[in-house]
This record gives sequence, structure tokens and C-alpha cells, in this order.
Amino acid sequence: MSNVVSPHQTAASLTEYWSPRVIAEVDDAYIKVAKIQGTLAWHSHENEDELFLVLKGHLRIEMEGRAVELHEGEMFVVPKSVRHNPVAEQECHVMLIERKSTLHTGDVVVEKTRTLAEQLRPV
Amino acid sequence: MSNVVSPHQTAASLTEYWSPRVIAEVDDAYIKVAKIQGTLAWHSHENEDELFLVLKGHLRIEMEGRAVELHEGEMFVVPKSVRHNPVAEQECHVMLIERKSTLHTGDVVVEKTRTLAEQLRPV
Repeated sequence: MSNVVSPHQTAASLTEYWSPRVIAEVDDAYIKVAKIQGTLAWHSHENEDELFLVLKGHLRIEMEGRAVELHEGEMFVVPKSVRHNPVAEQECHVMLIERKSTLHTGDVVVEKTRTLAEQLRPV
Repeated sequence: MSNVVSPHQTAASLTEYWSPRVIAEVDDAYIKVAKIQGTLAWHSHENEDELFLVLKGHLRIEMEGRAVELHEGEMFVVPKSVRHNPVAEQECHVMLIERKSTLHTGDVVVEKTRTLAEQLRPV
């Protein structure tokens, strides 16, 4: 990856909800963008933190006993092993930072689960 | 780190140029913001990639034989071992993603070099 990339524009160009795309790599981390609406699934990543940065819209991250509300331009790191469920009542664009090994639906496989190969497709 | 953070607001609140502050950690990566103006120093990170995302303003990253121009909202990864020099003709706010081991002026120590302890101070 050695091109100039616009996370905002790349996220806006996605046509499918909950289908993250890799836009950059920094050592063993991937930077991804996704367009989301509705809810994904309760899941956790046993050994990996996951950062959510809201590019557009509003995101609620539900966790057990806690929830955070992220507005445009705000970010939050879900610590490793914390069960969470991202919820966007309206269309929301997010940037994600996570280790390359991270599965986007963590310890569960649901209809929305995407393989890494799907996430690596050109936008 | 389990607070909601605004990279834009945190960068805007900094009072010193070229003094990055850690705003989040994702496994072995730090997310930092910095307010910059002028030029830093030619340097490289032998084993670490470094991502620059422009929050506000305009950044030129000079590399040997190449330069990229980043406008607001755009990002670029300087690959490991590539000598580079960030230049902001006007005040510019950036977000950085890099491994925790990364020294912000890489293989050189200059007047602007900040220790990790300085970068970890609360904003």
C-alpha cells in the first residue's frame, strides 16, 4: 500500500452493508472501512483490540453492562475479549483498525460474516 | 484506553508543533495526533510502517525520488525503511498510526525529537 487513500470517499463508495474493505496496512494491522446499518452480531475477539472511528453518521457500541455512543469524528477501542455489538440506526460509515488476524465477527459466524479474501477485494 | 476520543478535537487542542500525543492503543500499535507546521527531519523507520492521516490542512510527504500531497481526510502509509520528511507549509493536524516501538523521528535525533513519555502525557 503506497497510494493516497481517502477513507471517507472509499467508505461512501461501498455498495454493501457490513462488508469491510481493507484500505491500508501498517505492519501487522489492517485499516478497513465499512458502511453499516442495523446491527451486526454480539461477538468478541479473544486476543485483539478493535478500533472504531466514525467517518459519517452515528454508531452505538453495545457491550455487556455498558454502551458508548460515537458521533462523527469520534473513535473508541473495544478491548480484547470484551463482547460487543455495533448498532447503527441509520447508515453509518466507519474506519476500523485491527490486527490482520482479527475476524470481523470474532468468535461467531453469521450470515454477515465476510472472509478476509472478500475484505481484500479492490473497492 | 476505553474512552470515546475525538482525534480532531484533541489535535486542535495541542499547543506545541511536532509533539505527537498518544490517544489510543490497538494491540501493539499507537494512534497519535500531532499539530505540525514547517518541516520535521529526514528520517526512516527501519522496521516499521507509518500511517499519516490528515485531519486538517495539507501535508506533503517528501521521499527520495517521490513526494505525495495529502489533503484533508486523505492518508498515506510510508513503508518501512523509506526515508521521508513531512512538510506542512501551513498549520496541519494529523493522525498517525504506528507500532509502539516506532520513534517519531526514526533513525535521527533532532531538536524536535520527543520521548515516548512526552508523547504519553495527557493532552
